[in-house]
Amino acid sequence: MAPDQVAEFCKLASAALGPKGWTVDADMMDPWLTDWRGRYTGRAVGLASPGSTEEVSAFVRLCAEFGVPIVPQGGNSSMSGGATPDESGTSVLLSLRRMNRIHLDSDARLAICDAGVVLQTLHEAATRHGLRFPLMLGGKGSATIGGLIATNAGGTQVLQHGTMRAQVSGLEAVLANGDVLDLMSGLKKDNRGFDLKQLLIGSEGTLGIVTAASLKLIPDIGERIVAWIGLDSPSAARDALALAERKAGRFLEGFELLPESSLTAVLDYLPDARRPLEAATPWHALLEFAAPVGQESEVRRAVEAVLEEAFDTESIADAAITQNERQVEAFWSLRDSISPAERAQGPAMQHDISVPVARMAEFIEHAVPLVERRFTGTRALAFGHLGDGNVHFHVQAPKDAIPGNWEEDEGKAISALVHDLVTQWDGSISAEHGIGQMKIDELERLHQPVALDVMRAVKQALDPQSLLNPGKLVRPSARESGDDLAPDGSNA
Amino acid sequence: MAPDQVAEFCKLASAALGPKGWTVDADMMDPWLTDWRGRYTGRAVGLASPGSTEEVSAFVRLCAEFGVPIVPQGGNSSMSGGATPDESGTSVLLSLRRMNRIHLDSDARLAICDAGVVLQTLHEAATRHGLRFPLMLGGKGSATIGGLIATNAGGTQVLQHGTMRAQVSGLEAVLANGDVLDLMSGLKKDNRGFDLKQLLIGSEGTLGIVTAASLKLIPDIGERIVAWIGLDSPSAARDALALAERKAGRFLEGFELLPESSLTAVLDYLPDARRPLEAATPWHALLEFAAPVGQESEVRRAVEAVLEEAFDTESIADAAITQNERQVEAFWSLRDSISPAERAQGPAMQHDISVPVARMAEFIEHAVPLVERRFTGTRALAFGHLGDGNVHFHVQAPKDAIPGNWEEDEGKAISALVHDLVTQWDGSISAEHGIGQMKIDELERLHQPVALDVMRAVKQALDPQSLLNPGKLVRPSARESGDDLAPDGSNA
Repeated sequence: MAPDQVAEFCKLASAALGPKGWTVDADMMDPWLTDWRGRYTGRAVGLASPGSTEEVSAFVRLCAEFGVPIVPQGGNSSMSGGATPDESGTSVLLSLRRMNRIHLDSDARLAICDAGVVLQTLHEAATRHGLRFPLMLGGKGSATIGGLIATNAGGTQVLQHGTMRAQVSGLEAVLANGDVLDLMSGLKKDNRGFDLKQLLIGSEGTLGIVTAASLKLIPDIGERIVAWIGLDSPSAARDALALAERKAGRFLEGFELLPESSLTAVLDYLPDARRPLEAATPWHALLEFAAPVGQESEVRRAVEAVLEEAFDTESIADAAITQNERQVEAFWSLRDSISPAERAQGPAMQHDISVPVARMAEFIEHAVPLVERRFTGTRALAFGHLGDGNVHFHVQAPKDAIPGNWEEDEGKAISALVHDLVTQWDGSISAEHGIGQMKIDELERLHQPVALDVMRAVKQALDPQSLLNPGKLVRPSARESGDDLAPDGSNA
Repeated sequence: MAPDQVAEFCKLASAALGPKGWTVDADMMDPWLTDWRGRYTGRAVGLASPGSTEEVSAFVRLCAEFGVPIVPQGGNSSMSGGATPDESGTSVLLSLRRMNRIHLDSDARLAICDAGVVLQTLHEAATRHGLRFPLMLGGKGSATIGGLIATNAGGTQVLQHGTMRAQVSGLEAVLANGDVLDLMSGLKKDNRGFDLKQLLIGSEGTLGIVTAASLKLIPDIGERIVAWIGLDSPSAARDALALAERKAGRFLEGFELLPESSLTAVLDYLPDARRPLEAATPWHALLEFAAPVGQESEVRRAVEAVLEEAFDTESIADAAITQNERQVEAFWSLRDSISPAERAQGPAMQHDISVPVARMAEFIEHAVPLVERRFTGTRALAFGHLGDGNVHFHVQAPKDAIPGNWEEDEGKAISALVHDLVTQWDGSISAEHGIGQMKIDELERLHQPVALDVMRAVKQALDPQSLLNPGKLVRPSARESGDDLAPDGSNA
């Protein structure tokens, strides 16, 4: 936009959204222009914070008229730079945080949420009604419902309850032309054509801006038990997972794997933490079991049966079962501290990958030595959601690496190798963190060309001006974008 | 196509597909050119029966080159004319029935099926491995996996296990240009952009032709119990449903409602059938409970607990529980015979509708008398999947109605009223049978214009020539289609 157009646009935005809903103040915008991991910093024409779906619709219509790109943002906790604008300063940041109404319908077991409702707020509201929203992740204090839907967030309960996609009964979104698509009715059965709800979930704000959702709730937890087990190898963990699914599948909510080196790092990082088992086995797994109210004794019997058979068949080395919530929290804090503990040890390349569940153990046993051999001095480690076939595959820099340089140089080559391996194993280079701006080049390099073509065609059909979260997830092919798109930076 | 072009096309099709894969013989084509309910009859250039995905791809490429519309067909058991070509004779019929390989991976609990595998074949294969494919419907002996996916089929186990959408781990489809989209990997977590698998499921062959799928299996049933209960009203049935979900939710697989008049019709129709309960209550419900091997005693205890509380609160009038599989089959045969028994009574307008589960009882109590009052001499009845908020709402013709005329005259007005009511109640005019050609006008009349716009844009993006199943589900808007599309009949 020319400067006078910018002024005109800002005047109209301010009129549409009011003083609470529009600012161009640098100090107000600043906290939201850098992603939370500090990897990306962008600039913006202004920050819009509409208070209703109608205001989002009016604002998007205005942007469409002026050709202004829109970067939607919830809690600003994307792991892939998915909510940070580029450096051109031509976009607007659209925050959904002011839209935070929540209404619980206990009879229908539904939570009707505005996009800006924070996950933890929803958890607390559900608990007050004896219900539960079964999606849990580290960023629960900031992540919003809209962002969780836009990124199809995962977490630690996916094994039993699925990703965010499985929790959504209905949603509402504002499209690129400002139209409001109302898919809130949440019918259990509805075959009136393409499932547009599913198309929007996980589209990272590139096809529409989620403004509200109807989310499914389940009965609250009556008893939660965590078992910590010591193991010789990822393959032994895979066998323990199969056993737990067979004997206690309906209670098994999570199966988290970690190597001894990660546990050691956590114990160094958390001074008060204690080792869950006496012996230091090469691998560990944290198994979470949960039962709704009324099935407390059944879950404990089922967990004991799992461990009994595991000991009988000598498939695990040692095990401990929690007796109360305090112990549950203590075990989980070990698991949840792996990332910060690893970060404290120095630079590392992180990869959020998945392969078919049954093959992940084999993948780890293959990939870890291969990467360490190829890149001398590095240390590769895999931890996380083995029960979902999804681990966080971190490769730590050699001791003498120069932080900042190493990531850009050897680090990139490492990521390319890890992504190549995952692709060869029919896996995904993004299991739960999405593509955002961080992985868009790798997606274009490695994804099935036919799938990329379809995504581009759908994007072009629903957002012909390419105004919704440009530069994230999907961009026009080189041929289509031409030279005229390059100067505005949206395809940089 | 001009006659010489037709000849050229047929010659190339025959060369690509071989003698088993291509015919223009009228006798060979005839059985597949009328839908199984006998409502629609079409004509076709020829019948293609490719033997592999590669052949489908080559054939679709040929059709794209010549601009020949394609009508994909599985078991030809669409309830909405979704697999029948129009009368222009310009389309080809593409049968997937020859593609019927099936491979079971018991460890991963997956069935890898070609599109033409018949549902019953899959059921039998799963049973042989101690596993189960939890989707069951009347047409199981003819319906194919490809068709079930294309129509997101429902059935009697949706309450617990979801529709076909929930059973699909991965799929493969041939797109309008002949490209093969391979989404078979079936990762549990994969956030690499738009979920194209979900977009294809339920798209009725208008965006791509499903050629294969990876389907989820679950442990086989150890014990199945059916309870037949007598009730005073749909509201009493709703309360019984809530009670069953609360006390035995994890075993409850189906909750089917029927009025006394339907039971009477069935008893007239099946000479050897017996009334399940002595008293003739105004309404009945069939509750199915199932437990995997090892939980047989638990399910019986749970069912008894449900009925005990129901009698204590006087919410049901009478009840019977099956003691063996023979009784289970007997109860189900009453339920499964409602449609043929009603048909034997004379003409009726049938509607496959849903509203939010909690409101269906109220809807029935509101809509039945309203329709009967508005159309003198008709009888309205609702039966089916109350647990999914989905009933089949049939309106029988007055005794003196002339079959054939009545449907076209008063029948159409009745359907319009039923669909208007459902729309007012935030429901769907197609819960599980799809849109096909039968409901496309009603969809355009009643569906949210924004949703229709998005569907048309997606259709245009993925099938710009409008060759995939034209005239079904979604068609270009009047403005877009223009006059030049009309002559070929594809938008008739």
